[in-house]
Amino acid sequence: MVREILDLIGDKWTLYIIATLKDGPVRFNELRRRIDGISQRMLTINLRGLERDGLVKRTLFPTIPPRVDYELTSVGKTLLAPVMGLVTWANGNQESIRHARDRYDAIQGADLSEL
Amino acid sequence: MVREILDLIGDKWTLYIIATLKDGPVRFNELRRRIDGISQRMLTINLRGLERDGLVKRTLFPTIPPRVDYELTSVGKTLLAPVMGLVTWANGNQESIRHARDRYDAIQGADLSEL
Repeated sequence: MVREILDLIGDKWTLYIIATLKDGPVRFNELRRRIDGISQRMLTINLRGLERDGLVKRTLFPTIPPRVDYELTSVGKTLLAPVMGLVTWANGNQESIRHARDRYDAIQGADLSEL
Repeated sequence: MVREILDLIGDKWTLYIIATLKDGPVRFNELRRRIDGISQRMLTINLRGLERDGLVKRTLFPTIPPRVDYELTSVGKTLLAPVMGLVTWANGNQESIRHARDRYDAIQGADLSEL
């Protein structure tokens, strides 16, 4: 079961959705705009999974056209701290990772030139 | 760049690899055994990405057969806290998620029976 939960929350789209909902309700189309590269289908599937797990609440406003808002539930909000921990880590370690990649790629290049 | 890093660490296999390396070096085959469901190819690809990013160090022992150990670098170890934060969250919220799923599936079933 833990594995199953991690399969869900350890999905990049889930991380982005949770992080994008951190300040309150967001409409479906706005989520799609803010999460660069997500397809309508992937967003729908991920939101449905999060809703089923009780982490995200969906509210339908019967306007024309209908408006659908998504927001974190109280349990979903407890997931914000660990998710933002990862986001903060990624922000703080960009330089280190960039340098590591440059070094690695330079060594790979040197290895190849020895052939 | 942050997005690119999150694409890597927000991958379930990466989460499992980091968590599995938390207590020290682990051999490739042992990693594969401990991470249920990962293929040799996915493990190799993910380890290479982590090595390139300077988060995991690979050590080859020239024994017969050769032995390859993987361990977290000092930067990689700083990723343990946020990753274990997610794992701890998943452990602590199993019950809540199980109940939410049961409720959701019951409602879906009720909706269907009204058709």
